[in-house]
Amino acid sequence: MKLNQQTNILIIGLGVIGGSYAAGLTRAGYHVAAITKEQKDLDYALEKGMIARGTTTLDAELIGSAELVIFALYPTVFIEWIEQNQHLLRPHALITDVTGVKSGVVDKVQRCLRDDVEFIAAHPMAGREQSGIEFSNPDVFSGANYIVTPTERNTEEAIAICKQLGEILGFARISELTPREHDGMIAFLSQLTHCIAVCLMNCNETPDLEKFTGDSFRDLTRIAKINDRMWSELFIMNKQALLESIDGFVREIADFREMIASEDRDGMREKMRHSTERRSLFDKPRQ
Amino acid sequence: MKLNQQTNILIIGLGVIGGSYAAGLTRAGYHVAAITKEQKDLDYALEKGMIARGTTTLDAELIGSAELVIFALYPTVFIEWIEQNQHLLRPHALITDVTGVKSGVVDKVQRCLRDDVEFIAAHPMAGREQSGIEFSNPDVFSGANYIVTPTERNTEEAIAICKQLGEILGFARISELTPREHDGMIAFLSQLTHCIAVCLMNCNETPDLEKFTGDSFRDLTRIAKINDRMWSELFIMNKQALLESIDGFVREIADFREMIASEDRDGMREKMRHSTERRSLFDKPRQ
Repeated sequence: MKLNQQTNILIIGLGVIGGSYAAGLTRAGYHVAAITKEQKDLDYALEKGMIARGTTTLDAELIGSAELVIFALYPTVFIEWIEQNQHLLRPHALITDVTGVKSGVVDKVQRCLRDDVEFIAAHPMAGREQSGIEFSNPDVFSGANYIVTPTERNTEEAIAICKQLGEILGFARISELTPREHDGMIAFLSQLTHCIAVCLMNCNETPDLEKFTGDSFRDLTRIAKINDRMWSELFIMNKQALLESIDGFVREIADFREMIASEDRDGMREKMRHSTERRSLFDKPRQ
Repeated sequence: MKLNQQTNILIIGLGVIGGSYAAGLTRAGYHVAAITKEQKDLDYALEKGMIARGTTTLDAELIGSAELVIFALYPTVFIEWIEQNQHLLRPHALITDVTGVKSGVVDKVQRCLRDDVEFIAAHPMAGREQSGIEFSNPDVFSGANYIVTPTERNTEEAIAICKQLGEILGFARISELTPREHDGMIAFLSQLTHCIAVCLMNCNETPDLEKFTGDSFRDLTRIAKINDRMWSELFIMNKQALLESIDGFVREIADFREMIASEDRDGMREKMRHSTERRSLFDKPRQ
């Protein structure tokens, strides 16, 4: 297949990410249809001109005519959909996803998928605190990372189309990682940070604390407002890598605690100089 | 004493906070002099009109004429200054500070101070990542917290003047806490968060991580760029409260780790729902 403005694109799941994909692709002149569970989400997408058409049912004609299908579902729902409905996909269709964990999803889907359909996995690293189509916005992709995680089952052609999709949506950086590399990276950069934020909000119930908070605490806990259904699922699906990340962090904080307890000022200062220097690498590039 | 535009105010230490105090008070029409170590900082303050006059020496006339002295020094340097130079202070002078820890500083200074000089401690909760007078800006106080920490040695008059200072500088909320309450609060809201940020930047050296970072990780590590001299001092001076905060957080993350390991999805979701709800309390008030 080729991805151009004549391609039949189908998005399954109009949440905050599926909605942002729909709006971005439509804005770029592509032809987008959608299937989603709730009529109100479909109405919203149609009314805002985010999609050309859509339905809340398993419409065999719509699914059977789609050349590129983008799954924007919770990981377990996505896997279930494929197991139950893959017979409806068009021969030689290409399918991709937006799931935030990869090994568990890619293995399962690629192993059970029909031979005449290819699944190339991708992760658009642009979350929002809020969920739901009304928070979707294709501008969140500009400046963000888009990671394609091919395996030996993928063709060069599919990888290229998947990257092209990232370009159309306006991502700043498009990269390839193995599913395992992706999961280790995401366990540390994204999942561990969400665990920390949740734990910070659960470990101290002193009354009136909020009256004295400054921006540091606000920054560290912004992501403590979290979609509990989605993130608990993502944590479990990436359990091994996440536990390793937590353990590495807890070892480090135990070392640092020991330095405070023993008043090892030089040791602390060395850690702080390293953190100051290394953090500069992570500054947002000026656009 | 009274605090009005005729009061002789002296700021000792023109760093980022001392400079912001100077600029804010001068802008409000007050008469501000300063003593600081480096000639270049003094020149900067004079050139920008942040102070009326100043010196880099222990000028007995300048110190002896000041009715209100604001110490904007590192905690250990402040204590040393009082021990060595308090004989230069004017009888019935009022002194205050900007130190980020209280028990260790307030006890020491109030115990060794002359009977005819009063020390009323305060903490302007408005840090910046950068240090040095060139980053000073009195606008950082608007929207921020100002905490006065009186003890039984303080007079109602001094407490009122200290609060008045916070009002002149434009703080959004002015409160009173005991030094001990202050230190417990600051250990959790500010010091623990800085420890976490430093540890996050020290516990994973995977190459190219920075290429994949999103805003969550950036938010949690913004304060990993840290003044190592000042913060190591603050951590040690508030050791007991900080160790308790770290231990509470580490217990919580150990519990959460166990939930991931045992795939206790309901347990995780409950923690996440609590963090989501509780975090709303900490949202920045709309101004």
